[in-house]
Amino acid sequence: MRIARFTDGTEPAFGVVEGSVETGEATVATITPHPFGAFSFTGARHALGDVRLLAPVLPSKVLCVGKNYADHVREMGGDAVPQRPVLFLKPSTSVVGPGDPVALPADSDRVDYEGELAIVVGRLCRDVPAARALDVVLGYTCANDVTARDQQQADGQWTRAKGHDTFCPVGPWIETDLDASDLAIRTTVDGELRQDSRTKLLVHDIPSLIAYMSAAMTLLPGDLLLTGTPAGVGPLNPGQTVAVTVEGIGTLTNPVVAR
Amino acid sequence: MRIARFTDGTEPAFGVVEGSVETGEATVATITPHPFGAFSFTGARHALGDVRLLAPVLPSKVLCVGKNYADHVREMGGDAVPQRPVLFLKPSTSVVGPGDPVALPADSDRVDYEGELAIVVGRLCRDVPAARALDVVLGYTCANDVTARDQQQADGQWTRAKGHDTFCPVGPWIETDLDASDLAIRTTVDGELRQDSRTKLLVHDIPSLIAYMSAAMTLLPGDLLLTGTPAGVGPLNPGQTVAVTVEGIGTLTNPVVAR
Repeated sequence: MRIARFTDGTEPAFGVVEGSVETGEATVATITPHPFGAFSFTGARHALGDVRLLAPVLPSKVLCVGKNYADHVREMGGDAVPQRPVLFLKPSTSVVGPGDPVALPADSDRVDYEGELAIVVGRLCRDVPAARALDVVLGYTCANDVTARDQQQADGQWTRAKGHDTFCPVGPWIETDLDASDLAIRTTVDGELRQDSRTKLLVHDIPSLIAYMSAAMTLLPGDLLLTGTPAGVGPLNPGQTVAVTVEGIGTLTNPVVAR
Repeated sequence: MRIARFTDGTEPAFGVVEGSVETGEATVATITPHPFGAFSFTGARHALGDVRLLAPVLPSKVLCVGKNYADHVREMGGDAVPQRPVLFLKPSTSVVGPGDPVALPADSDRVDYEGELAIVVGRLCRDVPAARALDVVLGYTCANDVTARDQQQADGQWTRAKGHDTFCPVGPWIETDLDASDLAIRTTVDGELRQDSRTKLLVHDIPSLIAYMSAAMTLLPGDLLLTGTPAGVGPLNPGQTVAVTVEGIGTLTNPVVAR
C-alpha cells in the first residue's frame, strides 16, 4: 500500500495511492485520521495529478546514519567503515516534500545530494530487538540527505551542514508492503545517473539500525530513519533537478534553486 | 513573569507562577491557550506545591552550541575557542521536566551534567539580525545538557551521547522579564558546587547565537536554544541529585537513577 500526504488546496490529508502512476491513472483515496493505527476511507478520491503531494510524514525527528555504504566511506576519504553506526539528526524544519525546491544557502559553496532509503516508524518504541525491528516499521520512502559539504568539513559536527531548511526532501509516499533488504537505489541530476547501488550493501542493515537507534532514544510514530547514502555524491546547482528512486517505492524529484 | 507548564493530575496546562517560591506561598494561575501569543487566565489557581511541574515547553527542536565558554573549552583539552558556534541537536525525546529522573544508560561508563542557560523561542523566525534577536525570545529557563562523555568521544558526532531519553532536563519555568546578558549560573551535585560562572562569559552571546542559529534554520515557537556550559563538568552517579540554578530564573533539580 502506498500512503501519501497531500493537499487538494484545502487541509492536508493522508490518502492511499491506487492504480498505475506510470499510465497517469493513479488516484488517491483520502483516509482518516492518519496511518499510524486503524484508519478508514472518507470516500473522497482525487486523480493523483490533481493534488499536491506533501512530505508523507511530519516527523518529530529525522535520525540518520553516516558512512553506511563502504563505497561512500571510501569516496569521502575514509579508511574504515565505522564499527558502530554514526548517528546524527536533521531538524524537522529541513523536511520538504516531492516537487518542493531545495534552496542552496548563500553561505555554502558546495551543496551535495545524498540519495537514501528512509524508514518510517509506525509506533512508539524503545530498545527494539533486531529480530523484531520490522514490527515497528510503517513503511519506506525515498529521502535526500542534502548536505553543505564545506560546512560539514568546517564545523566537525554535521548539524548546520545538514540542517538547513529544505535539506531533507522526502517522498513521494510511504510504501508499506516491501522487503527493503535488497532494493535498487539511484540518484540522478538532470536525468544523469549519479548514484546507483542496492540496499543489500548497507553496512548496518535495517534491523540493526532500528535496534541501535531505539537503544539510544525512543522512536515516535512518523519519525524518519535515514539509512545512509552510497557512493556517487556530488554537487547541486541552481536550475538543476535531483531525483532519488528506490525500487518498489517510486521517485522523489526536487528542483534546485538559489536561496 | 514566570510561565510554567504543569499538571494537577489532569491535562497539562500552562500557568503563571506568582508569589514567593522561597516562602512556600507561590501559586500558579492557569492560562489558555498557551504563552506563544495572546492568552487569558482561566481563573483556576493552585498552590505551586500541589501541582507537578513539567518541562515548560514541548520543543520541536533543541538546538545547542558547544564550546561556548572559554574555560570549558580548556578543561576539555581544546586549544582554541571556535570562531563560529558549533551547533548540535538534542531530540525532543530527551526532554524531561524538573524533578524527573536523569536515567544513566547501561552502555555508558561516564555521564556528565552540563548546566546551561536556555533561550525559549517565542515566534517563528529565520535570518534574525542580532540587533533584533531579543524580539523572538519568549524568555529563559535552566537546562542540563546531559552527555555520555565516553560515547561523545567514541562517536565523533555527538547525537547519541547527548540524545538519550532524559538527557535534557529543562525548567522549572520560563522567566520572560530578564536581561540574560550577565547572570550567575551554577550547578551543584548533592548540594556541592561544581559549576560557577556568569553568562557574560559566553563566547558567542545570546544575540549572536540567535542570529547564527536562525541563519542556519527556521526556529519555531517553543524551540529551545541551549547556550553552552561553563567549566566544571563532571560525572553523575545513581542516587545523586543535580541542580542547575540561573540567577533570576530559579533552580532545575533532577535525581539521577540507573536505567
